[in-house]
Amino acid sequence: MFLLDHTHDPLIGSWVPGADDHPDFPVQNLPLCIFARGTDIEEPGRAGVRIGDHILDLSAVVAAELIGDPAALAAATAAGRNGSLNDVFALGAAPRQALRHAVHALLREGAPERDTVARMLTPVNDVQFRLPARVGDYTDFYAGIHHARRVGMLFRPDNPLLPNYQWIPVGYHGRASTVHVSDNSVVRPRGQVAGPDGSPSFEPSSRLDFELELGVWLCDSPTPGTVLPIARAAEQVAGYCLLNDWSARDIQSWEYQPLGPFLSKSFATSVSPYVVTPEALAPYRCALTRPAGDPTPLDYLSNDLDLAVGGLDIDLEVEMSTATMRAKDMPVLTLSRSSSKHLYWTVAQLIAHHVAGGCELNAGDLLGTGTISSADETGLGSLLELSRGGQEEIRLPSGETRTFLLDGDEVTIRGRASHPGRAPIGFGECRGRVLPS
Amino acid sequence: MFLLDHTHDPLIGSWVPGADDHPDFPVQNLPLCIFARGTDIEEPGRAGVRIGDHILDLSAVVAAELIGDPAALAAATAAGRNGSLNDVFALGAAPRQALRHAVHALLREGAPERDTVARMLTPVNDVQFRLPARVGDYTDFYAGIHHARRVGMLFRPDNPLLPNYQWIPVGYHGRASTVHVSDNSVVRPRGQVAGPDGSPSFEPSSRLDFELELGVWLCDSPTPGTVLPIARAAEQVAGYCLLNDWSARDIQSWEYQPLGPFLSKSFATSVSPYVVTPEALAPYRCALTRPAGDPTPLDYLSNDLDLAVGGLDIDLEVEMSTATMRAKDMPVLTLSRSSSKHLYWTVAQLIAHHVAGGCELNAGDLLGTGTISSADETGLGSLLELSRGGQEEIRLPSGETRTFLLDGDEVTIRGRASHPGRAPIGFGECRGRVLPS
Repeated sequence: MFLLDHTHDPLIGSWVPGADDHPDFPVQNLPLCIFARGTDIEEPGRAGVRIGDHILDLSAVVAAELIGDPAALAAATAAGRNGSLNDVFALGAAPRQALRHAVHALLREGAPERDTVARMLTPVNDVQFRLPARVGDYTDFYAGIHHARRVGMLFRPDNPLLPNYQWIPVGYHGRASTVHVSDNSVVRPRGQVAGPDGSPSFEPSSRLDFELELGVWLCDSPTPGTVLPIARAAEQVAGYCLLNDWSARDIQSWEYQPLGPFLSKSFATSVSPYVVTPEALAPYRCALTRPAGDPTPLDYLSNDLDLAVGGLDIDLEVEMSTATMRAKDMPVLTLSRSSSKHLYWTVAQLIAHHVAGGCELNAGDLLGTGTISSADETGLGSLLELSRGGQEEIRLPSGETRTFLLDGDEVTIRGRASHPGRAPIGFGECRGRVLPS
Repeated sequence: MFLLDHTHDPLIGSWVPGADDHPDFPVQNLPLCIFARGTDIEEPGRAGVRIGDHILDLSAVVAAELIGDPAALAAATAAGRNGSLNDVFALGAAPRQALRHAVHALLREGAPERDTVARMLTPVNDVQFRLPARVGDYTDFYAGIHHARRVGMLFRPDNPLLPNYQWIPVGYHGRASTVHVSDNSVVRPRGQVAGPDGSPSFEPSSRLDFELELGVWLCDSPTPGTVLPIARAAEQVAGYCLLNDWSARDIQSWEYQPLGPFLSKSFATSVSPYVVTPEALAPYRCALTRPAGDPTPLDYLSNDLDLAVGGLDIDLEVEMSTATMRAKDMPVLTLSRSSSKHLYWTVAQLIAHHVAGGCELNAGDLLGTGTISSADETGLGSLLELSRGGQEEIRLPSGETRTFLLDGDEVTIRGRASHPGRAPIGFGECRGRVLPS
């Protein structure tokens, strides 16, 4: 899945109008999604592939018998499940890779099936997206070391990183039932908040935050009882998305001892609708270098190939707008420019750690990387960091200020990868707007 | 669901042989389960009701048209789903209560359908059990205050209970994929364990523990966005079970800061196969009294009816045997005699808290109460407490000693409720045996 082939060739374009110049979805990307035509929430979801500003309906491709096995198997599996990619994820890498090749052949310049396939495209503005898969379990990691250090600094200035951080990919179980697809509304959660006298009250959170993360959709893990070596852990990845781990900081600080975050996180998690495959991201693998002097990972987390190309080089941005900014037609404010290169652990390490003790992973399980902030101040992935724990106001172009999110605020995460000589690809967006409690 | 009727009458018996003298499953109990005949793991699960030493097949009851709606709806829903009670749970209280009445009428002494129904019974020794429902999300609470205080004492002798404990039902998200039905084997997990010099190694846990808990199966929660008042929270309970939250203490102490337990818990959670309904437990409701001087719960956790009968009076026991004890035919050792009366929060309070911030609950979600220990030394719900953090050896009748579990050890949790003038009912058992890593 790290190999490059003609589907990555930036010189091969698509006959779909607008695809070649699309910043996110040229023919080299081809992410999977679940979409429905129209706005009826009862309309069943269909499996699709995004190309330019259109969605290719995989059930139509299957019905027209345009592709052969094993790509047809993947497409039929996706198309037959009425609204979830779980079974496609469960097929693993080979059928997914074959599907990529088959769809690329249908959409590339000069494809003989062009006229037939053109009728299977729906403009993206005419569809709504569904969650790509039923989330069995959702796990959120803490693999952004600059976030961990900066948040730790707020609470423990002398000892910001806990002793386990550089040894163990710290993570915890999140809430699967409240993972929603962009662009969703997020109702401001209510909860217990500590008062100045030590006794709490139950009220709407006044420290509502976002967290910039990557999401990882998983295939099935091996049979329970067998060991998954780090060298094979990357094979468990079905694809990537953007993820916003909405967080209520005031609820979190009161509830989280000793068992970790609970209701401060479980009211909502947003993911972008597209599953960007490991194949599409192959040109953007990179090394994640550890600072000199940091401990060497234990054997079960160490692998030469993973060391060399286990990282991802994806530019990540957070934009924000307020109701006032939108009413005045002001442009959004970019709060943060970060990168997945700032992660301390590779996704393979997260997975190898997750299964090492006997925990079963299933197709459709979702991982969050944890908040990805840069070492410097340009790429802070949360308002907790941007406002230094709520101590410093952020000035907006509208003249407003913020420490945490107010009702009506909208947060959008974007992700794009580009390099000279390679086709740029992107993730679309993960957007959510805060509604009053 | 707190009302008593003729189905609770201890003077009404059953025609099923052995049911009237059964310590757990007389006709006043009638718990639901998913079972399969024979030992083929491919055999689909069927919905059943336990009575005495038999299982009544609900699909046979439906096929014979022995009962009318709404009980028939519940039975057909259970029988039609091939191996899960999720959809029955989702129906809520009224059809479940009607099913109880209808099954009671079929199984009570003098039932005219006796000969027909007798052919729908399978001896419990001829069946295997499946997990009663597909677990969407699993949440583990920490509502046993004596456990929380005693464990806190090991780490913070001067301040064993954290400031939030008496205000907030502390809980965290557990791993749904590794919830298994009794009687399962538990492979000793491997994981990172801190060494004496501060650097960890990856090895099999040497501090493997059990935790005595009650489990709670849930119905659907109300539409997201609507408030669930504490007065209605108990309606979300579909039934109760026994739960063993297996824990690797050495992995836990290294990994749990700052985001809580993760792989130290997620390798296995065991539940008993029977769903004991709120209706069956109606005679065993009780008050959970707070010590004088403890804070009054906030309004969203306070309700007069819940204060009066929100607790459950169930005797809980933990038994243990070793391979040596079993080889010598020695009786099991009872390690602990506890009670659900020792919980600090009612199940309605756990649920009201869980949904208060906007978290969606779904039918088949599972809650654990947290470890239920007594205030005194007779009912300690974990080896961490029994061995005082591993400092004191527990002497076994075989001459062996334990601080934590060794390979081959088997732990069984039992639960029973009884009072003079009421029919005793029980939960069966939640059993698991430790296998080597």
